[in-house]
Amino acid sequence: MASPGIAPIAASLGDPAGIGPELIAEAWAQREAAGLHPFFVVGGAGVLAQATALRGRAVPLEEIATPDQAAAVFARALPVLRGPDAAYAPGLPDRAGAELALWSLGEATRLAVNGSASAVMTGPIAKARLMEIGFTHPGQTEFVAEACGIDACDAVMMLAGPTLRTVPLTVHLPLADVPHALTSALVERKGRIVAMAMMRDFGLSAPRLAFAALNPHAGEEGRMGDEEARIIGPALERLRAEGIEASGPHPADALFAPRARTTFDVALCMYHDQALIPLKALDFDAGVNITLGLPIVRTSPDHGTAFAIAGKRLADPGATIAALRLAADCADRRATR
Amino acid sequence: MASPGIAPIAASLGDPAGIGPELIAEAWAQREAAGLHPFFVVGGAGVLAQATALRGRAVPLEEIATPDQAAAVFARALPVLRGPDAAYAPGLPDRAGAELALWSLGEATRLAVNGSASAVMTGPIAKARLMEIGFTHPGQTEFVAEACGIDACDAVMMLAGPTLRTVPLTVHLPLADVPHALTSALVERKGRIVAMAMMRDFGLSAPRLAFAALNPHAGEEGRMGDEEARIIGPALERLRAEGIEASGPHPADALFAPRARTTFDVALCMYHDQALIPLKALDFDAGVNITLGLPIVRTSPDHGTAFAIAGKRLADPGATIAALRLAADCADRRATR
Repeated sequence: MASPGIAPIAASLGDPAGIGPELIAEAWAQREAAGLHPFFVVGGAGVLAQATALRGRAVPLEEIATPDQAAAVFARALPVLRGPDAAYAPGLPDRAGAELALWSLGEATRLAVNGSASAVMTGPIAKARLMEIGFTHPGQTEFVAEACGIDACDAVMMLAGPTLRTVPLTVHLPLADVPHALTSALVERKGRIVAMAMMRDFGLSAPRLAFAALNPHAGEEGRMGDEEARIIGPALERLRAEGIEASGPHPADALFAPRARTTFDVALCMYHDQALIPLKALDFDAGVNITLGLPIVRTSPDHGTAFAIAGKRLADPGATIAALRLAADCADRRATR
Repeated sequence: MASPGIAPIAASLGDPAGIGPELIAEAWAQREAAGLHPFFVVGGAGVLAQATALRGRAVPLEEIATPDQAAAVFARALPVLRGPDAAYAPGLPDRAGAELALWSLGEATRLAVNGSASAVMTGPIAKARLMEIGFTHPGQTEFVAEACGIDACDAVMMLAGPTLRTVPLTVHLPLADVPHALTSALVERKGRIVAMAMMRDFGLSAPRLAFAALNPHAGEEGRMGDEEARIIGPALERLRAEGIEASGPHPADALFAPRARTTFDVALCMYHDQALIPLKALDFDAGVNITLGLPIVRTSPDHGTAFAIAGKRLADPGATIAALRLAADCADRRATR
């Protein structure tokens, strides 16, 4: 748990038709066992009340006017910052719900940027729904980066679970575009951001970064691709010259085997599925998406809206609880260093 | 264990400087606890004797002149088919060792093809070493396919562990070449071979095949790549029309999460690391490489020569034992169907 003096965490609601609202209420219900730092939800009091009732949980809600009221309320009720609301129709996303989700995301981020909240934990949204109302970012990460005045390239997504931490160096691209998108400059720049964040936010004084290869068997000395020698290797040389512990490029299949996993603190992967496959195979229901390189702390449960199971008492709160806990840990390290 | 009437399994030695020889001896030492069907090693008696001694195991060896002598010997000694030998120098591969490895592989395969052995279990070789003595195949799988008179495209590599079975539909290619190499015809052809093998060799009457997508989020309705709609989807339609249970294309990161893994018998993946990352993350030290679509049964432990730890009593025999057991199971199903 974060130090008592740290501001509360702002949680955005996520799409009200998804599993976000019920999970944030469930996390509050488990606040003591999970040792959670105070948090508040930004808007959607009616949605939360109905989602909680359908979940079968007695979760009292209490509206607050400003974030600084959250800490006093948190022990007796889930604090909800006054704001817009919508009808609760689990599994049936609509335009009004998308508008509420976007408002909540924007406001929660703003409160973290201005320091009223120590961190932002974003609930799951449906990108396709948000695009219909004019959302133009590839995802929440890029939205938050812009709100912080940071180039989206410098906002680095990391997935963190109990077993493993992984970073995809390229993210939402067709696989065919990955080899062209990979450059030494990209590997270096993101490697530096990850190393810095491991020190600042995770308290590791000499973080061990392991870089995956792009090609099978790490290209087998050039017989199956040359990106290892041409792009990744030179970038790692430069990172090592700066004193960063950067190993690799490693054959990606060997990198996530049990013994290999003990040799690094974070695996930097060349594309989305290379990072997400091992994380979800090993740490499903407990994976947290954290954005590195921002002036604020931002985390998110590593799952989607799961419209199909919303309101059915099936969704697992593990990742939401882990995202709230990690947000508090990182905020605490930043405040006390 | 296979029925008593089934012929013994032929095990090739693998590179004599690697961990193959000590592991096959270790597997024999554990034959009773592991319930192993009789097997014999093809050549390399001197290598095996020294590897066993260095491993610290009392494994008596007994040379046999023909495979049909193996079953009677197996209870009291590790049967070794008379043949070439080499010096034992763990961790120091050389030309003579590569020649022994290649002879053993060829002879073990020949004995399976002519029916003297019920299956072949191939030990780990060093491809770079074999290439120096004229080996031109991409790997042992293609070598075995040719020995069987089968087109290498119809010899399908499957990785099988206690948790998961995966098939890479493209294998030893640079990642950049994967999108071009993927065709509907390839997906269909290999899908059919896998379905047939799941029935014939694994005893599943209605095998559930799950196909991974190529792109992140399965392309997200075309926003991140179109191979799902253009190549994979149509192939799956045709497989389903033939009565094969073929689901997908699924987002690859979700496919290997714990709950998803219970919904299929085998995952068909679009490229090497997509198949190997989850397998090695979940089933390391117990993964078996089995070649589907051949007239013979061929398995192999899913690890390399590991020259660095050869002769040091560190190598884990789990995958070798699993490869011998799976070979016997498949041979038994073929014999008794």
